[in-house]
Amino acid sequence: MKGKRTDMGDVQCGIARALQVVGDWWSLLIVREAFKGRRRFSEFQRSLGLARNILSARLRKLVEEGIFTVEPDPDSALSRLYLLTPKGHQLSVALVALWQWGEEHCFVPGELNYAIVDSRKGQPLPKLQLAAQDGQLLDPREFRIVAKDR
Amino acid sequence: MKGKRTDMGDVQCGIARALQVVGDWWSLLIVREAFKGRRRFSEFQRSLGLARNILSARLRKLVEEGIFTVEPDPDSALSRLYLLTPKGHQLSVALVALWQWGEEHCFVPGELNYAIVDSRKGQPLPKLQLAAQDGQLLDPREFRIVAKDR
Repeated sequence: MKGKRTDMGDVQCGIARALQVVGDWWSLLIVREAFKGRRRFSEFQRSLGLARNILSARLRKLVEEGIFTVEPDPDSALSRLYLLTPKGHQLSVALVALWQWGEEHCFVPGELNYAIVDSRKGQPLPKLQLAAQDGQLLDPREFRIVAKDR
Repeated sequence: MKGKRTDMGDVQCGIARALQVVGDWWSLLIVREAFKGRRRFSEFQRSLGLARNILSARLRKLVEEGIFTVEPDPDSALSRLYLLTPKGHQLSVALVALWQWGEEHCFVPGELNYAIVDSRKGQPLPKLQLAAQDGQLLDPREFRIVAKDR
């Protein structure tokens, strides 16, 4: 892969650029844990079962990329809080899309015991779907990537 | 990371399971190329600039996982076509979500010259947003993962 990660970030593609930031396998799971309320290194480590050095490197990169911000821990001078920034929070749409795809295609029926619900009423989130500007739903294939008019 | 990839696939999480299938850095870009119309090994290789052995391994895994199906190439006995399955097509929602996040957060304004449009009218896709069952839009933080009632 030599050099490719860097190269791909330069291309004109939102997906490639997003993957350069959160495309390693653990980063999105760390972000998921933050959505669940984890804020401390020890909490991320316990819930993900991840080696300290790997977690440390991933968190550092996520802070550098502006996904997390670091604040003092009011409960402990030895600890710090990793808090999602607005940029980090906005990853929720992609996380929910991945969850819904995984739920539908990567489990046998009845296997997955968890659901994603809205936190207002506790009802399962409806499936994200592609739609046109007039609100008409699109088939998963009905999109394309085009050069913008200048 | 020893053993972790396999372990994570067993957990009760749609995201972890989805990432086990498409979570390596190149897989989603290969799927993106398929949405652009690439179907042959040589086409994927040319557009991604990826080493043959890496592309070959990734495509094999994506076929095993049911993202692609392989068919004879009507134009050449030496080539085969890699076609997205319905499971593969349905990754488009996650791809569009990643693109839109990347477009908003990983480019400076005016830098990205490409847009995702619907293929019916050619208009930019509106941003995917989380919504509740009654259609009310949710803040990116207004969801949670809960155990299903049994």
